[in-house]
Amino acid sequence: MIVTVTLNAALDDTYEVPDARPGEVNRVAAVHRRPGGKGVNVARVLHGLGHEVVATGLVGGAAGRRIEDGLAASGVPAAFSPVAAESRRTVTIVGPEVTMYCEPGPLVTDVEWRAFLGRYDALAADAAVVVLSGSLPPGVPPDAYAELARRAPGPVVLDADGEALRLGVAGRPDVVKPNAAELARASGTGDTAEGVRALRAAGAGAVVASLGPDGVLADTPDGVLRTSLDRPEPGNPTGAGDALVAALAAGLAGGVPWPDRLRRAVALAACAVRSPVAGELDAAALPALLARVTLRSEESHAARPHE
Amino acid sequence: MIVTVTLNAALDDTYEVPDARPGEVNRVAAVHRRPGGKGVNVARVLHGLGHEVVATGLVGGAAGRRIEDGLAASGVPAAFSPVAAESRRTVTIVGPEVTMYCEPGPLVTDVEWRAFLGRYDALAADAAVVVLSGSLPPGVPPDAYAELARRAPGPVVLDADGEALRLGVAGRPDVVKPNAAELARASGTGDTAEGVRALRAAGAGAVVASLGPDGVLADTPDGVLRTSLDRPEPGNPTGAGDALVAALAAGLAGGVPWPDRLRRAVALAACAVRSPVAGELDAAALPALLARVTLRSEESHAARPHE
Repeated sequence: MIVTVTLNAALDDTYEVPDARPGEVNRVAAVHRRPGGKGVNVARVLHGLGHEVVATGLVGGAAGRRIEDGLAASGVPAAFSPVAAESRRTVTIVGPEVTMYCEPGPLVTDVEWRAFLGRYDALAADAAVVVLSGSLPPGVPPDAYAELARRAPGPVVLDADGEALRLGVAGRPDVVKPNAAELARASGTGDTAEGVRALRAAGAGAVVASLGPDGVLADTPDGVLRTSLDRPEPGNPTGAGDALVAALAAGLAGGVPWPDRLRRAVALAACAVRSPVAGELDAAALPALLARVTLRSEESHAARPHE
Repeated sequence: MIVTVTLNAALDDTYEVPDARPGEVNRVAAVHRRPGGKGVNVARVLHGLGHEVVATGLVGGAAGRRIEDGLAASGVPAAFSPVAAESRRTVTIVGPEVTMYCEPGPLVTDVEWRAFLGRYDALAADAAVVVLSGSLPPGVPPDAYAELARRAPGPVVLDADGEALRLGVAGRPDVVKPNAAELARASGTGDTAEGVRALRAAGAGAVVASLGPDGVLADTPDGVLRTSLDRPEPGNPTGAGDALVAALAAGLAGGVPWPDRLRRAVALAACAVRSPVAGELDAAALPALLARVTLRSEESHAARPHE
């Protein structure tokens, strides 16, 4: 079983606004409302691929109830811990470009955080892999991901940003998945290879940097590997990172060698790009996309600092 | 008592995103969540100015309950009619520019619409003025505003767009308040003076066209009057139209002569522009803004068609 943790679960609204005009009043053509937050999206992807998964984290208020109802409706097993404040919403505008707006999230009390830790320990004890994803709501300790990684008896995948990522790496997660901007913020360098090495040095067992259309640069115990599609896939990039994390977690759970794990992850991310709605993916396209993935080793120049 | 009608009431979210970047993931700095829809905002403004007002219309679902709870919390008397589907949400991004996204609204059944008409007739019977504002949710007849205007024994103010406005004018509302874009869509001409004359010819007792920084052009039984501030007021224009309508309704209820009614309306709209949150206004600035209003008659060339 894979356990995904979403401490700042959200009700995600996707607004289709084909002719969105900034600075004006825009009528929304179609509204998609669904449970979200990175870990919830990862759980949905894993469930859709037939993996045994449980989504946990914190939810509260009317939005929290809708998050749990939505997961139940789509058959994704969930075991969230309650908070008194209301879970946040996010709004993604899909028009000529894709723009996302994220609310900060509910204020979590110390009692609520400790109650979650009890539930987390029980779930992590049976987990083949634990996935820690997304932002921390107000009130949760900034080093929450380091603590959750330490408490997990099995392997951990971390996908976070800013302080949550920087402090979380100290918990020695097995895999860390930053995008280029998150990597730069956490490592303090704009150089991807250098940032990836810095995160490994800080405690990450492996670092998989997602570079959008340029695929991923992975610094792993099996070497430094660059994986990408032969040509970028057009579509909505929202959710592609979650699909990438889902594939990395599944590969980790199944003991898939790094090269195949990365090929599948890049292809699955492309399946998500093809879907306009965050968290959904066009799995039927997986075989064709897998055939378009290229992988090359950069062992020679990038791994030396670890030898 | 003034009755405001909001058939497509909304839960309005205002997101403060000072550095909003289109095409990216934006963290929302502050969230303001409040009941909305044009008629609800008009009721809030009138209540804040000490006028006796009742907000009616249609609400449904969890969002509908929050709309009613929010109005109760701010002391605005409300008497909404229930629908089974959930009321819509709107999201306004306040960043380098102000962009609004409006969901279409709940599907209203014929039975729900007729139930509302019964409630409306009872409220309109005691109303000094009825204000009909905003879009029509799916399922409500396109000529709903014409029917509501005809059923009202007293004077009616109409603020709508597109077909709802075009068909609504046939109900002979006493005042119609389009902005430049709404006027062009309803009259089929880009010329403001010509469009204003067309709406009066179609049944409006008076037409007050709001032209943003250029103030208003009003075609009234007392002549054609152009009213504006000495210089445009910087700020958030969302809600300015609702403040303008509130002042026009109050002036109509109080029998205030058109020139003073327009001066106050333009000044009150500017008070709303000064507030970053839709539906709120900086009433303390009213005297200073009133002193900056200029009014001139354009009787000679614009009114001739009616003589």
